[in-house]
Amino acid sequence: MKFDQNCIFCKIANKIIPSTILYEDDDVVAFLDVNPVSYGHTLVVTKGHYENFLSCPKDIMHKVYDLAQRIGQVQIKQLGAKGVNILSNCYEAAGQTVMHFHVHVIPRYNAPDGLCLEFNKIDDVNLPALAEELKENLK
Amino acid sequence: MKFDQNCIFCKIANKIIPSTILYEDDDVVAFLDVNPVSYGHTLVVTKGHYENFLSCPKDIMHKVYDLAQRIGQVQIKQLGAKGVNILSNCYEAAGQTVMHFHVHVIPRYNAPDGLCLEFNKIDDVNLPALAEELKENLK
Repeated sequence: MKFDQNCIFCKIANKIIPSTILYEDDDVVAFLDVNPVSYGHTLVVTKGHYENFLSCPKDIMHKVYDLAQRIGQVQIKQLGAKGVNILSNCYEAAGQTVMHFHVHVIPRYNAPDGLCLEFNKIDDVNLPALAEELKENLK
Repeated sequence: MKFDQNCIFCKIANKIIPSTILYEDDDVVAFLDVNPVSYGHTLVVTKGHYENFLSCPKDIMHKVYDLAQRIGQVQIKQLGAKGVNILSNCYEAAGQTVMHFHVHVIPRYNAPDGLCLEFNKIDDVNLPALAEELKENLK
């Protein structure tokens, strides 16, 4: 298992830095975000170091999302959340701040909170042409 | 496989409504979002009807994220994206608008686009106390 000694999530996952852990096994750890955007905001991370979702091996990535699913279900049932966002940011341009694969499980309560998530349509894109271009690499 | 005749993503996944499909197999479909927030914004959905991430069976959910990973990798390599957001919203309180499990794969380009994603810390939460409470349901 790869350990990056400069990575804060490697240190949290291996308990060199303390955190409020909710669950752990050999491959994954869930802990409360120290800068929560809502009550119960949780991070699910791999124990080994992978830069982000795009470079994580599938079997480990599946374990991360399995745990994210359980956490989200508990946020609904136990915390009374009315919704949950499941979010992973890859690279700085997408808002990733710690370069170790992690999934945010963010409970929402129909009340103001610290997450701003808005979708606004960009100008017209030629979707059929773009699809033709991308399909070649997805065969 | 469950089909909901009132669900637009069931209709897209089963080609009753046309869309610009990038990839499909027996279980999952990727197509370009008709209201893209960035160039290449793609949705990965299940062919069968599941309300959202929290209620999707694990084996199918894994296939959705496997495909999301491939799509994100292609957005980086082929479209020149500098980052990718992998997002699934569960229930209306979290911004879910179509009640059929889907994952947004949103390429980002270090340029203005239609996605507002900001994290702001909420007031202090007693994290150790909250963790104790939640851990009971995650054993």
